[in-house]
Amino acid sequence: MFSKHAFLRVVGLLITVPALARDPAPPRVTVVDVSFVSSVLRDNRIGLKAERAMKVYLPPGYAGSNYRYPVVYLLHNNYWSPRETFEDGNLQRLLGRAFARGVVEEFILVVADYTGPTTGSLYENSPVSGRWLDYTVEEVVPRIDANYRTLARRESRAVVGQFWGGRGAVKFAMAKAEVFSVAYAMHPVAMGSGDLPWSSTEIDWPRIHAAKSFDDLAGLGRTQIFWAIHQAFAPNITNAPCYCDFYFEMQDGKPVYRPDRVQTMRAAFLLDDTLADAAPALRTMRGLALDWGRFDTTQAHVISSRQFSRKLEDLGVEHVAEEYRGDPWNRTWTEDGRFATRVLPFLQKHLARVDPGASR
Amino acid sequence: MFSKHAFLRVVGLLITVPALARDPAPPRVTVVDVSFVSSVLRDNRIGLKAERAMKVYLPPGYAGSNYRYPVVYLLHNNYWSPRETFEDGNLQRLLGRAFARGVVEEFILVVADYTGPTTGSLYENSPVSGRWLDYTVEEVVPRIDANYRTLARRESRAVVGQFWGGRGAVKFAMAKAEVFSVAYAMHPVAMGSGDLPWSSTEIDWPRIHAAKSFDDLAGLGRTQIFWAIHQAFAPNITNAPCYCDFYFEMQDGKPVYRPDRVQTMRAAFLLDDTLADAAPALRTMRGLALDWGRFDTTQAHVISSRQFSRKLEDLGVEHVAEEYRGDPWNRTWTEDGRFATRVLPFLQKHLARVDPGASR
Amino acid sequence: MFSKHAFLRVVGLLITVPALARDPAPPRVTVVDVSFVSSVLRDNRIGLKAERAMKVYLPPGYAGSNYRYPVVYLLHNNYWSPRETFEDGNLQRLLGRAFARGVVEEFILVVADYTGPTTGSLYENSPVSGRWLDYTVEEVVPRIDANYRTLARRESRAVVGQFWGGRGAVKFAMAKAEVFSVAYAMHPVAMGSGDLPWSSTEIDWPRIHAAKSFDDLAGLGRTQIFWAIHQAFAPNITNAPCYCDFYFEMQDGKPVYRPDRVQTMRAAFLLDDTLADAAPALRTMRGLALDWGRFDTTQAHVISSRQFSRKLEDLGVEHVAEEYRGDPWNRTWTEDGRFATRVLPFLQKHLARVDPGASR
Amino acid sequence: MFSKHAFLRVVGLLITVPALARDPAPPRVTVVDVSFVSSVLRDNRIGLKAERAMKVYLPPGYAGSNYRYPVVYLLHNNYWSPRETFEDGNLQRLLGRAFARGVVEEFILVVADYTGPTTGSLYENSPVSGRWLDYTVEEVVPRIDANYRTLARRESRAVVGQFWGGRGAVKFAMAKAEVFSVAYAMHPVAMGSGDLPWSSTEIDWPRIHAAKSFDDLAGLGRTQIFWAIHQAFAPNITNAPCYCDFYFEMQDGKPVYRPDRVQTMRAAFLLDDTLADAAPALRTMRGLALDWGRFDTTQAHVISSRQFSRKLEDLGVEHVAEEYRGDPWNRTWTEDGRFATRVLPFLQKHLARVDPGASR
Repeated sequence: MFSKHAFLRVVGLLITVPALARDPAPPRVTVVDVSFVSSVLRDNRIGLKAERAMKVYLPPGYAGSNYRYPVVYLLHNNYWSPRETFEDGNLQRLLGRAFARGVVEEFILVVADYTGPTTGSLYENSPVSGRWLDYTVEEVVPRIDANYRTLARRESRAVVGQFWGGRGAVKFAMAKAEVFSVAYAMHPVAMGSGDLPWSSTEIDWPRIHAAKSFDDLAGLGRTQIFWAIHQAFAPNITNAPCYCDFYFEMQDGKPVYRPDRVQTMRAAFLLDDTLADAAPALRTMRGLALDWGRFDTTQAHVISSRQFSRKLEDLGVEHVAEEYRGDPWNRTWTEDGRFATRVLPFLQKHLARVDPGASR
Repeated sequence: MFSKHAFLRVVGLLITVPALARDPAPPRVTVVDVSFVSSVLRDNRIGLKAERAMKVYLPPGYAGSNYRYPVVYLLHNNYWSPRETFEDGNLQRLLGRAFARGVVEEFILVVADYTGPTTGSLYENSPVSGRWLDYTVEEVVPRIDANYRTLARRESRAVVGQFWGGRGAVKFAMAKAEVFSVAYAMHPVAMGSGDLPWSSTEIDWPRIHAAKSFDDLAGLGRTQIFWAIHQAFAPNITNAPCYCDFYFEMQDGKPVYRPDRVQTMRAAFLLDDTLADAAPALRTMRGLALDWGRFDTTQAHVISSRQFSRKLEDLGVEHVAEEYRGDPWNRTWTEDGRFATRVLPFLQKHLARVDPGASR
Repeated sequence: MFSKHAFLRVVGLLITVPALARDPAPPRVTVVDVSFVSSVLRDNRIGLKAERAMKVYLPPGYAGSNYRYPVVYLLHNNYWSPRETFEDGNLQRLLGRAFARGVVEEFILVVADYTGPTTGSLYENSPVSGRWLDYTVEEVVPRIDANYRTLARRESRAVVGQFWGGRGAVKFAMAKAEVFSVAYAMHPVAMGSGDLPWSSTEIDWPRIHAAKSFDDLAGLGRTQIFWAIHQAFAPNITNAPCYCDFYFEMQDGKPVYRPDRVQTMRAAFLLDDTLADAAPALRTMRGLALDWGRFDTTQAHVISSRQFSRKLEDLGVEHVAEEYRGDPWNRTWTEDGRFATRVLPFLQKHLARVDPGASR
Repeated sequence: MFSKHAFLRVVGLLITVPALARDPAPPRVTVVDVSFVSSVLRDNRIGLKAERAMKVYLPPGYAGSNYRYPVVYLLHNNYWSPRETFEDGNLQRLLGRAFARGVVEEFILVVADYTGPTTGSLYENSPVSGRWLDYTVEEVVPRIDANYRTLARRESRAVVGQFWGGRGAVKFAMAKAEVFSVAYAMHPVAMGSGDLPWSSTEIDWPRIHAAKSFDDLAGLGRTQIFWAIHQAFAPNITNAPCYCDFYFEMQDGKPVYRPDRVQTMRAAFLLDDTLADAAPALRTMRGLALDWGRFDTTQAHVISSRQFSRKLEDLGVEHVAEEYRGDPWNRTWTEDGRFATRVLPFLQKHLARVDPGASR
């Protein structure tokens, strides 16, 4: 499965987390840099780099033990990276504290590299913007299992992500439940439609049709993001320069709506459209959770998550779905935020820690 | 297509509508009783009568002319009947006034018989509770066209209904667009899910499973109605006494949720689940409208209609969708109500009045 | 009441509207330019011009008759003007057609001048950005009544507006019901809160605090508009350069929320906060209507209008409140749009046309 | 403050909770019956009994120590009682387990008696149906503090309740913040309006006006409850037999809406109407939380709680507001339910355990 072009580079960066006032022992934490060359991601039309630079967080007890650990894959958001995820030391602090206090037993946390020249991964397989699902399960996960003392089975693998990474967490649960058995989506997006029709997305159609590249649309916010969304969810490798089929065509200088394309694209883009098909897989999950902040200024995210939960309920899929006071970002990474008080206890509850074949 | 058992009985009831103060000439209006024996409705398990008693309203100019007229099929609600529709004379008054004032040109209005021993038609084909769609297009419409001077083609046929009849109007547009080209749904129901899951329908499952008949559930409101809904949308002719598959089964005295059955039933019951398939038919409609009162105490009806309109928009289906101040009933049949001020002008705008083959 | 500085200049521009195919007689319509110098608007801190240039539309029959006419005051939106309102001839066409077809009897339509160097009027009295309510009732209306054959009383005066102008229409009904008795708000804004708190308005607080003027905030969309909103609804003539109290203060370089200011400002800004006080006035209206498009990308407008209607209902205020398929702009000024099919018939129904003292 | 007629009767019932499999030591828990005669509740028109029978839960460590403990007042719902609260032993089990595991340190839990001949307390002061707020703070709390080793100050007192009891918890925070400093409302009701107007409450007005007593309305669900709601929130001691002012009057056999009464009643009934006034008190709370299940079949409860949280946000009142998957009852009292996983940790976080005057 591994490409012969791939290689492994472990930098072995040791980071000492400053001790917190109330926590006696400063845990020694290791965040390892792991680089390799992806074969899967070579298959793209947007100039994705094949070199991938992920980060692997090894818990305090890892170095001095020979235990095998569950692995949590943390999916970063658009425009973000593994490096930035650990940059300010906050994530290490939250993990160290939770391990020290017994909120959750130790695990390995992996932040794989989902960066790209446009928005970064939207957590989908696309012949244009990258087969990110395949990359994850065919390259990232096997590489981690091959190089670290992991509990290398779905029962001990979780996927966690925020915003677009939250979309990723749900998508992996729906499409790759044979690899992951626990998923926690923090304020996921692209779950459903909200209350507005697709003709109201405020895309600048003349500009997007005139653009030669993603960068041509710099400063056009939503329009630029929809360039990448089309590449991921409405790809067409014969249709340069976007290599996609826009759902408005230009005719005589005017944008003309194409409902057929909307139907195709929304089935790919919005997770609720294919949820019924994914229900059997989702019912095998050991733990499935989503949460979201009520005060997202894009209320469509809120409305969609509510409806997503209702549909899971109709489908008989066990899950947690909690809406909290806050926006998508201001209640997540604080000491009493969602990651520390919701995600970590959820992982503790659902991640299997002992090999089924082993004796306790 | 007509059954040999069918026959036609025209009673020829003449009703004189009292003149309104401001309307000079009291129009002479004819409401005709038409009875026949349905073949289609013999196919049922709930004791539907094959004898059907509809009412045909002939406009003031009908008797003294040899014109052909468009026909509007008005679908009555559950627990209602053709007789009750005309009983207080209000409908005749509203029509007479609108014709007199030129709000709409004259048409024939038919109220077919959708009564039954349970709720009456839910406007669906079911081997258990009646194939009401087939009954309408195979028996009612041909009989009207055979016996009255109609413009016997889809361009000149409209279907209008309220509440469950509104559901019927949308359903006929989706399933029988070759027969009707104009549909106006007044406060339709069963369009979509609302915000609650199917496990929250407040059905008394032990009682519905214990019941021997619809009447056994008298006084149980929602539970009783769902008996009929199951017969229409989850029929199973081998499963007496309900002849249906309930979406909660009883096991060890406790109701157990069956998500598979919910998926099947909601696809049949809720019109939005099959809307994408019906879009090509709906795009052929000359006029499609729904409206609804914002203050329905079952807010799921309101929410569902909003979402239904959004989905039509996504599908590129031209339509009118208006939400008004009011409940499902208090703004519809008054002089300035929805029927007089919205439905009738809509019919005027979209019903074809001249045979395409004829010269103007 | 009139300022001695005021004067009247009638340019007497005659516009001939091109005949429509189906309308036999091209009506002769007069749109008159009326300029005057406002005294009321001198009282401001933002450089409002005192010279005001309104447009008065005289209906086809005006010139050849000596009748007195009802007057409709059409309130233009932000960034718009009387000139632009008539520029493409569409409004004249819609009015001419409606008069010709008897949809509504003739009236005078006035578009007063609500322009300014920031957004234009937000239809409020403010010592900073102008006392626009006073300007309207103390200067505009008396001037019209003095110079044209109007039915100079509330029963024959209507106010109609769209978006911010819709806000104005409701505001005049609430605050100046002694002047206007009919109000129609087309897709009004600033009615209520929507689902997001005031801390989520996405204002760039450091920038707004650093700005020296409205123009400094060019390109900052929402932030710039809130500069003008603060001037209108949280004015403070001692606090230059904005002359207002922002509801976030800067402390140590960080924005700090001021809930006391939010309470004060929302009571002034959002019409629903003072609705109960205005109910007695609103109950005297001959006609009160609001409508709005469901697909406004700012869904807070939609949610607020729904709630506004519910509150009117609770207060026992008779009104029309209709939500339609469309966005705030795409269904309003077409031939079958809201103005032609809803506003004009509403004016016909509610505007008194005969002097109460005169014999019929 | 204590009435001389009051007396204290301690029954000293000892309940041994069965050990749970995973919890080693079966804690010895004491639930004490405490009866007294209320003076405050004598003031009523509906036949409230003055004899009150509360339950006091003493934690496992109470008997063998001389510590002082915080006190949590648990407000029972309508139609419920102190006795039923402890009847099945579940509450004792949840508390015992949480104490044993260190989820929360020990506290005394009091279930006072809010029963009555109609619905029971609606947690309001009413001259007709009882001054329940006064009863609580003038009689219950002082009695507990006088007879048990409590930390007798607001910092160490919490109020927790569910449904109507949840309404009570918020009401005490708003009105009696000098007595309680921590409040957790589990799925509270009567917080706000939802989306329906007051004319749509589905009260049977002819029946409620004809009724001689609450019992006369047996079987009329909502209508019966509104009898009690009127007595609590629209009391009029001169207007027998209900001693209230209904917000529809009967005139000529027809119900006539009284908007003035709605305004008065909703200000008393719905907590959001007076929230701004209560904000200063609420800002003094050490902890304020509400949560609710998304799938309440009365969606008005859900909508109202969302809006209540938004208003708290606007008012700058710190709080927790979490919406979960579930209905009002099915996720609350299980081992992983809201009480065990949310309420108890919240109490641990916010209840002061050490006397401010004492040294740590």
